[in-house]
Amino acid sequence: MKIGILGTGIVGKTLAAKFIELGHEVMIGTRNVSETLAKTEKDMMGSPPFKEWHSKNPKIQLSTFADAAQFGEMIFLATHGVATIAAIDLAGKNNFKGKIIIDTTNPLDFSQGMPPKFSATFGNSLGEKIQKHIPEAKVVKAFNTVNAFVMVSPKREEGDPDLFIAGNDEAAKSIFKSLAEQMGWKRIIDSSDISNSYWLEALTMFWVNYGFINNNWTHAFKLLIK
Amino acid sequence: MKIGILGTGIVGKTLAAKFIELGHEVMIGTRNVSETLAKTEKDMMGSPPFKEWHSKNPKIQLSTFADAAQFGEMIFLATHGVATIAAIDLAGKNNFKGKIIIDTTNPLDFSQGMPPKFSATFGNSLGEKIQKHIPEAKVVKAFNTVNAFVMVSPKREEGDPDLFIAGNDEAAKSIFKSLAEQMGWKRIIDSSDISNSYWLEALTMFWVNYGFINNNWTHAFKLLIK
Repeated sequence: MKIGILGTGIVGKTLAAKFIELGHEVMIGTRNVSETLAKTEKDMMGSPPFKEWHSKNPKIQLSTFADAAQFGEMIFLATHGVATIAAIDLAGKNNFKGKIIIDTTNPLDFSQGMPPKFSATFGNSLGEKIQKHIPEAKVVKAFNTVNAFVMVSPKREEGDPDLFIAGNDEAAKSIFKSLAEQMGWKRIIDSSDISNSYWLEALTMFWVNYGFINNNWTHAFKLLIK
Repeated sequence: MKIGILGTGIVGKTLAAKFIELGHEVMIGTRNVSETLAKTEKDMMGSPPFKEWHSKNPKIQLSTFADAAQFGEMIFLATHGVATIAAIDLAGKNNFKGKIIIDTTNPLDFSQGMPPKFSATFGNSLGEKIQKHIPEAKVVKAFNTVNAFVMVSPKREEGDPDLFIAGNDEAAKSIFKSLAEQMGWKRIIDSSDISNSYWLEALTMFWVNYGFINNNWTHAFKLLIK
């Protein structure tokens, strides 16, 4: 499958490498390609600059948001939450039409420092905002409740976490589900339509809160069903 | 320990029976004792009327909200969420002073039918409202993310769920934690101060949503930490 990824941060890079490993074609999109390649410093999480990482992952194509969106049959949104709508606009709304869009982002506001504030309200979650912004796209909220490393390597010492998703299009969720299973996710729990992305985003705040209290960032939820 | 419980529903009854089993003294409080005892019909969940249940659990005392609150060294709030503040007022705010209050309730609005609507907003969760209403009490949000049967018998086939709590008073949380451990909870995850009860209440909405989609009500969260 051709996968476009918007965002060159740790989520975008980690997903891209995994998708290549699984045999997919991947293009990462960024706002400004030359700026992305010109960076020489590690990011705030200690990851190497994009160019250095890219030299070790040569199969991954890098281009503009628009090119990556056009390229992808499935498009992952992997920017900061506050920048997601702008990234879609830069990519060109038309490039999302009819496609499966995986929204991994969270409505986190880092402008007042750490810990981030939650910037969604009920009925106005980021997943819903995105779906309304590109109504002809099939938005699936997913992966927003775990960090990048867990996304591509979900198994924990304590068990297999659940992947929580929400979205209006059943076929899109089903296709995404197959990909997630390829990535090692054992169980995908469908929270129904995109309006429920509010609860998935709220779960993230619980997750963030736990992270700051315990300085742990690889935790993940499991719903004990039986 | 002397435990007061406000609420004669399935949560109040199930907790009361468990606390008696563990050797505690329990008084359940209700708005109107004679009305509670006069009921002859099963409730909407199919539980027998209070009097019938009470005849099988004779060690549990039944009295007014005020008596139960005065009686308890630890007081469980186990009414419907919309009725909790009124129950506290009927019990008399003075009866909560300096005591440990376990808020098991959720800001669910059933007035528009099923599924219930979420009636809290960020910064205005039910746990916070209660703490502000009785500022000299030590409110601990707990047990709100599972149903009554899981509260008293947490182990699931799929593993041990985590108990999520929030509250401002460390000593109160520590005393509650010991009680929860007596009840079979293996791990209690402290989400810090009472402002975080919003995220615990939001977790419940995820839980409710799952319940309605899957007609399952004994599910419980586990946070895979390692």
